[in-house]
Parts: sequence; C-alpha cells; structure tokens
Amino acid sequence: MKIKVLGSGAGGGLPQWNCNAVNSKDARSGHEFVKPRSQSSIAVSSNEKDWVLLNASPDIRQQIFDNKELHPHENGPIRNSPIQAVVLTNGDVDHVTGLLCLREGHPFNLYASNRVLGTINANTIFNVLNPEKVNRIETQLNTPFEVMTPNGSAGIEITPFNVPGKVALYLEEKKADGTFGTQEGDTIGLFVKEFSSGKGFYYIPGCAEVDQPLRERITGAEMIFFDGTLYTNNEMLDQGLLPKTGERMGHMNMSGDDGTLKIFEDMNIDRKIYIHINNSNPVLRDNSDERKAIENKGWEVSYDGMEVTL
Amino acid sequence: MKIKVLGSGAGGGLPQWNCNAVNSKDARSGHEFVKPRSQSSIAVSSNEKDWVLLNASPDIRQQIFDNKELHPHENGPIRNSPIQAVVLTNGDVDHVTGLLCLREGHPFNLYASNRVLGTINANTIFNVLNPEKVNRIETQLNTPFEVMTPNGSAGIEITPFNVPGKVALYLEEKKADGTFGTQEGDTIGLFVKEFSSGKGFYYIPGCAEVDQPLRERITGAEMIFFDGTLYTNNEMLDQGLLPKTGERMGHMNMSGDDGTLKIFEDMNIDRKIYIHINNSNPVLRDNSDERKAIENKGWEVSYDGMEVTL
Repeated sequence: MKIKVLGSGAGGGLPQWNCNAVNSKDARSGHEFVKPRSQSSIAVSSNEKDWVLLNASPDIRQQIFDNKELHPHENGPIRNSPIQAVVLTNGDVDHVTGLLCLREGHPFNLYASNRVLGTINANTIFNVLNPEKVNRIETQLNTPFEVMTPNGSAGIEITPFNVPGKVALYLEEKKADGTFGTQEGDTIGLFVKEFSSGKGFYYIPGCAEVDQPLRERITGAEMIFFDGTLYTNNEMLDQGLLPKTGERMGHMNMSGDDGTLKIFEDMNIDRKIYIHINNSNPVLRDNSDERKAIENKGWEVSYDGMEVTL
Repeated sequence: MKIKVLGSGAGGGLPQWNCNAVNSKDARSGHEFVKPRSQSSIAVSSNEKDWVLLNASPDIRQQIFDNKELHPHENGPIRNSPIQAVVLTNGDVDHVTGLLCLREGHPFNLYASNRVLGTINANTIFNVLNPEKVNRIETQLNTPFEVMTPNGSAGIEITPFNVPGKVALYLEEKKADGTFGTQEGDTIGLFVKEFSSGKGFYYIPGCAEVDQPLRERITGAEMIFFDGTLYTNNEMLDQGLLPKTGERMGHMNMSGDDGTLKIFEDMNIDRKIYIHINNSNPVLRDNSDERKAIENKGWEVSYDGMEVTL
C-alpha cells in the first residue's frame, strides 16, 4: 500500500495567512529549517493508479499540482483523475473545503459519517459536486467498508470508529453544561487495510483524548498517523495566538503527562507519525529541541510530499 | 491606486486538477510559454497598507503566500493581515470558497449583493467567519459605497451594477422556459474609484453579454478588467472538455462578431485587460496566434502577480 502525505499542517497551514509568529514568519521567508506545510490530508493507493483521499483540504488544488501521482493519466481521456474516492474524518473546514475544488463533473465516491454528511447535505454549495456523479455514502461506526471507485474496488477496506473529539467550530452550540453539542460521529478515526497484503494503518488527525477503547484498539498497530496539533496544551495562549487550549479545540498535545509521547510509550506501535501539526508547534522547526525529543521517543513528523510504503 | 492580480484564471485554474488537455498538461510540466494561473481575484489598495479583495478564490492561501503585499505586517500584532475587506461579484465557487480560508478571527468587512449574501447566509459553513468579527454588508445595485475597513475608510468607493450573467451553477434551477432562475444581482460588475486621485476602473470577471446599458456605462473608461473566459463560444465543446457553450455558462468569447475584441473596438477604453481566462483559451499560450490577435487589438492578458498602478 502506498501512502502520500499531501498536507501535514493543521488548520491554516504553515504559514498561516494572518499569523505573524516566528514559525509562520520563517516559513514565509524561506528559512532552511522551517518548511511550509499545507493543511492535513493523505492519499492512499493499493494499485498506484487509483487513489483514495482521506480528507479534502482547502489546499487540494496545490496538493494535486505538487504530487504527480494525482495528475490526470496522460494516456487517459481529455478529463480524468486518479482520485476515485474521498473519505472524511470530520466536518472541519480544513478537511471538507477541498471538496469544492473537485468539481467539473469527475465521478468519485464520497464517504462520511451520518453527522458529517448531514453538514455536507445542509450546505447547498456542495452541490457543485453533481449528485449524479459523486455518490454520498454514509459510513457506519465500527463497520468496515470496501472503498469502491466508480469502476470497482479500490482494494482497500476502511473501518471508521468514533474518537473523543469536538464538533466543527462553525457547528458549535453553546450548551448550559459548558459543552458544544458534540455527538458521536463528529470526529472519527479510520483503520485503513489493504486487501492484497492484509497490512493496515490508523489515520487519526484529530483526537481529544486517548481513552481506554482507543488505547485497546490501536495497541500493537503496524503504523499510525496521529493528531500532532500542539506540543503543549497551552501553547496557543502562551504565544498570544488564540485564547484556547488544545483541550478546548479537541486536540492533543505531545508533551507532559497527558501528552501523546507519554501515552503511546507502551503501546508497541511499529511506526508513529504525527500529522495535523499546528503552526505554533515547535517540532515544525527541523532543528528544535522539541523535534529531537519526539524523535528520541520514536515519533516522526510528517511533511508535505512524504511517501510511505506499508 | 495599486492593483495586484492574485489570480487570472477561470474556475479550475491552469492546470485544472482533472484536465488532460494541452494547456493544462503544458502548465503542469513547466512549459516556458504556458504559465500556471490560479483562480480569478484581484486586490486593490489606496494606501498600500490596507487591501481590499475583489472575490475570494479557492487558491487564496497560496495567493496570499505569493504576494508579499498581503503578508501580515511584520511590526504588527502576532496576528494581523492587510486584508481589510472583501467584495464579491457573484456566488460562484471560484469566487467565494476563499472566504473559508479567511477564518482565524481576523476582522474584515464582507460586501455582496442581496442574492449572493443570501447564499452565504444559507450555507452554515461560512459561519467559520465569526459574525462578531466579519460584518456581512449588503450592497445595492447602482449605489456607490465607501469601502470601510474595521478601522475606517479604505479610501475607495465601489459602485456595483448588474450585468447580464447567470446564477452560480450549484444554484441553477431548471425552468420550464429553458432558463435557470437567474435574477438581478446574481452577477455584478464593480466600478472601483479611489477618492484621493479620482481615478477608477471596472472589474467585470463574469459577463454574458455587453448590452446597451453596459456599453454606455463603460464607454470611455480609464481601465477595465473584463471576462476573458473563452476565445470562441464553442471551444469547450470543440476540445471535448464540456458539452456547454460560453453562452450557456454565462461567459463571453473574445473572437467573432459577438466577441469582445469586436464589441470593444469603438468604446475608447484606455487600458483593456482580460481576466478569468479559462484553461481552454489559446491566449494562455504566450506565443499563440490568438495571443497576438488580442494584443493587436490593444488587449492585455492578466497574469498571476501582475501589478497595475492607476
């Protein structure tokens, strides 16, 4: 199975359009240790011909341009694309906006939970995806499905499962108990398995907490792409960027007793890769102490264009 | 007044993600005479500090990255942007999707017609633009308004006016008479005037026909950016790209008796610049006969990053 990281950044990417903090500044000016990153999405293929996108970021047009695997087949029809299916993990703007760029009548299958499809259906702008060409297919939690292209199987099976998270910001409803109306299916993780090899990996770009069911599920995995939004829960506040903790945003931090470095220590996962990394995170500086710290714990930081073979 | 062309292409840009035709292929492979183009949008400034965007394309994040005028002020707060207002000419996906990328709590003013604002309001995904920070301001046809930033005047006055056009594709309703439910305000042109110099230009990236009122309005203008979607009405059909004429799409062609080259001949406009140029258009090849033909008629082809001073 081939995996291509199209975007490794969190919402806003690096640089973020309106951010004057050091990481964004340095990415903007071409700093050798701070590479630009687009917003998180990966592409998966079993046959290196048909590709399945996991999430569709706002940067999708540039991501397609930058990754030749996603260019139209040169010997194919005048209009064609290797993109045969899109699977969504939530309704965040940084994961669904790219759908608006996949218009122009290309047939593909769109998979999402009832909650996320409900949002897509409620926003008429997504009708640019002609419903006669783009099937909207509701997935069920904990029920594996075979990813289908318009012409048959993609050779890949995906199991969606609920993870602790938060409803997309634009859908938050302030409840009397201080919560925001988050429901099951608002944030999901995906287990992606290739039929031919039997190999599989987890894709969990957003996660608020590793609870016991999640721990049991992912322990012993071959590979995981996991939420690498923040290094510390308070870093957005500390840097004066946003008056919100990671916890409030539904994302985890790497460091500390409640951080992923510590939590994943005894989970026996062969390959651990951070994705959805916020522009405030010091691991985005290739030469930072924090980068060394996570690498010493066996983690990798994904980057735009990263190729992984499983 | 400074004008920066952020994107010169029509919907899809060049290359278009799923297009295997010669222009897209050549743009993808770095052909010296076929430069990539992002989707149409321009930025305008009277003081070179505060910028007003005319339309917000899906490529806005890359467009901001590529144009240093739109980077955060280095001596400004930790989060800031020179983008102080956005004015929309229609509800097309290639003109409104970029709004979803201007989130992150930055205050600006959003101006659009009743029809276009209605679409924005009906799609809850646009609530990522916090209504406490981003004012949605309804403009009236033929009524000039002073473009305001959150801190005062942008020094620019804009007059929106109806032009012959078509409602956005995803909003089309098939009517018994063969029309698609287009109403006044679905497609507008803008006259942009700088208070300090009194100079002004027209911005009309989408237009189905130069009717008599439009002809009278723009005759004798100092400068115009005009719909350059197609070279011939049938070129999308002839190239096997889409079974639609320019007429059906609500866009004009350059050549022929009904084309803009001929129609604009006696209008006495000082500077005529094509924008919103579709990837099928042969004028996108710097060395084409069609490019020579339009230049011989006094037209320019805008390009990404083009700077214009008026």
